[in-house]
Amino acid sequence: MSEPVAPRRSRLRPLGIPEVRITGGFWKERQQVNAEATLPHCLSWMERLGWLGNFRAVAEGRSGAERSGRVFSDSEIYKLAEAMAWESARSGDASVKATLSRLAAEVGAAQQPDGYLNTAFGRPDLPPRYSDLEWGHELYCYGHLLHAGVAAGRVGVGGELLEIAVRAADHVCRTFADGANEGICGHPGIEMSLVELARLTGEQRYLDQAARFVERRGNGRLADIAFGRSYYQDDLPVRAATVLRGHAVRALYLAAGAVDVAVETDDDDLLAAIIRQWEATVARRTYLTGGMGSRHSGEAFGDDFELPPDRSYSETCAGVASVMLSWRLLLATGEPRYADLIERTLYNVVATAMAADGRSFFYANTLHQRVRGEPLPPDWVSPRPATRLRAAWNQVACCPNNVARLLASLSAYVATVDDGGLQLHQYADAEISTRLPDGRPVGVRVRTDYPDRGEAVVEVVEAPAGESTISLRVPHWAVGRARWTDPDGQSRTALTRTVEVTRRFTSGETIRLELPVAPRWTEPDPRIDAVRGSVALERGPVVFCVESVDLPGDADVDVVRVDPSTAPEDRDGAVAVAGALVEPASADWPYRTGSGGGPGRPAEILLRPYHSWAERGPATMRVWLPTL
Amino acid sequence: MSEPVAPRRSRLRPLGIPEVRITGGFWKERQQVNAEATLPHCLSWMERLGWLGNFRAVAEGRSGAERSGRVFSDSEIYKLAEAMAWESARSGDASVKATLSRLAAEVGAAQQPDGYLNTAFGRPDLPPRYSDLEWGHELYCYGHLLHAGVAAGRVGVGGELLEIAVRAADHVCRTFADGANEGICGHPGIEMSLVELARLTGEQRYLDQAARFVERRGNGRLADIAFGRSYYQDDLPVRAATVLRGHAVRALYLAAGAVDVAVETDDDDLLAAIIRQWEATVARRTYLTGGMGSRHSGEAFGDDFELPPDRSYSETCAGVASVMLSWRLLLATGEPRYADLIERTLYNVVATAMAADGRSFFYANTLHQRVRGEPLPPDWVSPRPATRLRAAWNQVACCPNNVARLLASLSAYVATVDDGGLQLHQYADAEISTRLPDGRPVGVRVRTDYPDRGEAVVEVVEAPAGESTISLRVPHWAVGRARWTDPDGQSRTALTRTVEVTRRFTSGETIRLELPVAPRWTEPDPRIDAVRGSVALERGPVVFCVESVDLPGDADVDVVRVDPSTAPEDRDGAVAVAGALVEPASADWPYRTGSGGGPGRPAEILLRPYHSWAERGPATMRVWLPTL
Repeated sequence: MSEPVAPRRSRLRPLGIPEVRITGGFWKERQQVNAEATLPHCLSWMERLGWLGNFRAVAEGRSGAERSGRVFSDSEIYKLAEAMAWESARSGDASVKATLSRLAAEVGAAQQPDGYLNTAFGRPDLPPRYSDLEWGHELYCYGHLLHAGVAAGRVGVGGELLEIAVRAADHVCRTFADGANEGICGHPGIEMSLVELARLTGEQRYLDQAARFVERRGNGRLADIAFGRSYYQDDLPVRAATVLRGHAVRALYLAAGAVDVAVETDDDDLLAAIIRQWEATVARRTYLTGGMGSRHSGEAFGDDFELPPDRSYSETCAGVASVMLSWRLLLATGEPRYADLIERTLYNVVATAMAADGRSFFYANTLHQRVRGEPLPPDWVSPRPATRLRAAWNQVACCPNNVARLLASLSAYVATVDDGGLQLHQYADAEISTRLPDGRPVGVRVRTDYPDRGEAVVEVVEAPAGESTISLRVPHWAVGRARWTDPDGQSRTALTRTVEVTRRFTSGETIRLELPVAPRWTEPDPRIDAVRGSVALERGPVVFCVESVDLPGDADVDVVRVDPSTAPEDRDGAVAVAGALVEPASADWPYRTGSGGGPGRPAEILLRPYHSWAERGPATMRVWLPTL
Repeated sequence: MSEPVAPRRSRLRPLGIPEVRITGGFWKERQQVNAEATLPHCLSWMERLGWLGNFRAVAEGRSGAERSGRVFSDSEIYKLAEAMAWESARSGDASVKATLSRLAAEVGAAQQPDGYLNTAFGRPDLPPRYSDLEWGHELYCYGHLLHAGVAAGRVGVGGELLEIAVRAADHVCRTFADGANEGICGHPGIEMSLVELARLTGEQRYLDQAARFVERRGNGRLADIAFGRSYYQDDLPVRAATVLRGHAVRALYLAAGAVDVAVETDDDDLLAAIIRQWEATVARRTYLTGGMGSRHSGEAFGDDFELPPDRSYSETCAGVASVMLSWRLLLATGEPRYADLIERTLYNVVATAMAADGRSFFYANTLHQRVRGEPLPPDWVSPRPATRLRAAWNQVACCPNNVARLLASLSAYVATVDDGGLQLHQYADAEISTRLPDGRPVGVRVRTDYPDRGEAVVEVVEAPAGESTISLRVPHWAVGRARWTDPDGQSRTALTRTVEVTRRFTSGETIRLELPVAPRWTEPDPRIDAVRGSVALERGPVVFCVESVDLPGDADVDVVRVDPSTAPEDRDGAVAVAGALVEPASADWPYRTGSGGGPGRPAEILLRPYHSWAERGPATMRVWLPTL
């Protein structure tokens, strides 16, 4: 099997990558770009910058004085290795397998006899092992090594990679046992990978160590810092927290690991705590795009309803991590709200982060770009997380590798099974062929142009013997408006978040779902001060934006006002809305008695999918549009 | 003479601290608290934390391995020394003089024979001198040493402090001469103090070196960093920049130094460049409070109109620096707009930063506190710049010492003279006794309860022989509404930003100014997205806010809506306005079709001066209030 997440027991059972083939459409295109462009792009940059060479330097016993990259650069190699493992399961491409084996050999050569493996610590001219748990990222790096090892092990590729991971995990269990080093890592992440290794190997000690790391956190073992201990979630025990806070990726990785521990140990209290945190975070600390993290400072969640579009951090990796968390909660509970957030995040964070050609990336994903700026230099290794256009590479390169591993494994997030049947969570042209837990084979084919069009046809290709259920998620914006037609041709409105058809299926039968993807205006909660008096446009799961290149005379987007009392119109992939361009009065002091600004010049405003912005050179852009 | 800034020639001539005595009211109270509480508080913390001990360690030849404090902590001692020099000029207090002499002796004992003086570099177990111009702050520290030396020299106190400063300045001129080390400091500040030392000593080389530092900057001599070179203004030459950008304190110190260089070298182009930058910054990057810097990340200016109240950084030191810049521009040009911004910043940033008791401080000054939080631990040395309540001390303690030196010297910012007469820029109970440039003595007494009340009476105590002019600034919000009465009893409306009375004055004559300090609603420029649909309340120069402790049932401030069509009413130091409390509907996703929230419960809302907030325990607070 080759599932990224494989709980020993859970409400829903995930499918492996070969069981779900995405055969066309939005995500198929991106999976191909990922395979053909992004994976080689990432590898080539990490060779060029010496991050892979760091492993060779250790293997050859060289000093650490000339080590390249940031302290956590090892983890980027591991993320890419994980991506390659999933990609080889997806495509069967022999060259990816060969490259992965080579990577594994390079990594393995740098492992110490006791299992320790890190190029930034523990050798001449570098700090000693575990001398900086706050910022050293050693356990975080193991986390990604273990993910890569599990992926390689499940797919059956990567040479010794799983063995390397097992040796590292055993070293961690010895070193960080109770009574030994009782510390935790400044960056969570190892928790979920230890659980996954326990799932793969059946070894309880990995699960125990993961549970230990989860329970140790939140008691002030790490130093207080300028960002506060909430930065690394060491301010409150996981069970006591009510909302995600601090560094967004850290918070989401920790929560995902806590779900894994809770599921494997039947710890309903812990699971309930994470569900509460997810609910509060989604209700009060999440952007319309699904983006998480509203503070550049500390790459962190803000306070409730602190969601400024122009300073949306919405780190790409936080989007990936949010998908990882929601997927675990979906498996644990079966509730469609988690798949809703996954969909929103995929279309509006993950798809936005990567350029169409797969060779440049946003690290932070703003919802409002005020300044046009200059084109970026080609082949620029950005020292900054936030760039106005996608950068070819970044000194902190977590995001490209993280997107790569998610895209390569994306088919695993499309559907699940349970004792009763099959659940479809995401809509894409796909062929699904698996078995129900009781062994009955089941196969379906999905045909759709979603999200461009709302129709999805699910055809039963191999009907399970006896009665079974096919469930289709109805996104929250479609409830009460979507229509569906059962195999007998009877049509109904979908009144709940799931459509279920239970019957003795026969091959060739179809269920037809019609989701209302017409463009719609969306208003923000009045507590989100930063977008008061503004609306956004959504179409199906896709958030739209206005970009200066689509305005008359390349006007700045800040002059746009829209009239949400008029209906938006589809216009060949874009959406046209009625509005005006209002040139503000100039003023030497921007606060006065009585407001400025006239009614403006009426104009039709063209909006395009947010994920497609910044592909046409420097531009200003906004998602939230002030109303007339 | 004891002016903080003493141009050799300028449009207006500043007065020394003993020439202007603030005798009562708002600022007199704060000057007394500063003298009695803040100066001893700062000294005691810096003793306790070992920052003063760092100088002893150098003097005793000890290793740097156990050095205390951040790399720039020397500068805090120098800021406090400067404050003590001004304070001794203000009060003549012998104990302050004695303490300052002791500080000077401690500092002097750590100076190297070649003039080098820094406790964080250049000795065993510490990095070599000038090995980290980006972050080392060595030249920045000299800047404050020179300021302290100049203050001590002008006031005639501080033992050897001026000589220490001169030796350090000579060392800097040798080390950073053209052809030697042609670097610049990652933190500007030395430029203005070199000019001031040139003014005091008449030595041209200090001015030349200041000009060199100004001209070198902006050519990428410092490394590119995550914040970008704009962080330390090394992205664009000073003359080419159009607006202040990057780290706010750095930007403002640099601009102030550039004005000093421009004034002393008759460089009108350079002066014009800074005036343009000031204008653009005030029009597009300044908070209603006068606060500057809207990004926590990099403590930096944001893009134009990026002014979120809930993430207002508005660093206290940026407020102090803004006063320093505007004061230089006021002296150079005589234009009242600079005094307007000084007044706004004093009442709403500087006065806010310091607690009423002078023993705790805001480092960052938010305009919207969303979370109530817990009381701070007593005697807490905050590792964070942004705290919910004022902290007793901070690991980066620039702000308390910076406020202390400004308050001690505040009387110097009240009035100036020129060939024609005397200009009154700030309104406070004061006695002013000086000479016009031609030698004619002049004395006035100001009586006022400003800003509580709008009346100020200026009485001529010593009339200059012959004709002269007394000018009174009319704040921009008072133009067209203020009334003034000349010595003959004739009243007029003030139609311009200055009231001027030219005559042969006789002692006992008065000019009476009535400023309209009734509370007024203020609307933001529509380009400030973060406060769209909101208004603020001002009363004279004072910005008001609502604090949760003043709401019925200690409600959260985010439920407040106000009705700006009704007139606000003075209510015993506070202001009452009509509005409503709107409890938001709870939602599991904060974006929807059709808005939520009902009309709310009508309520009278009590507002208080922003500078007085957070004195009654944890609270939520906001300056910008959504309208009904």
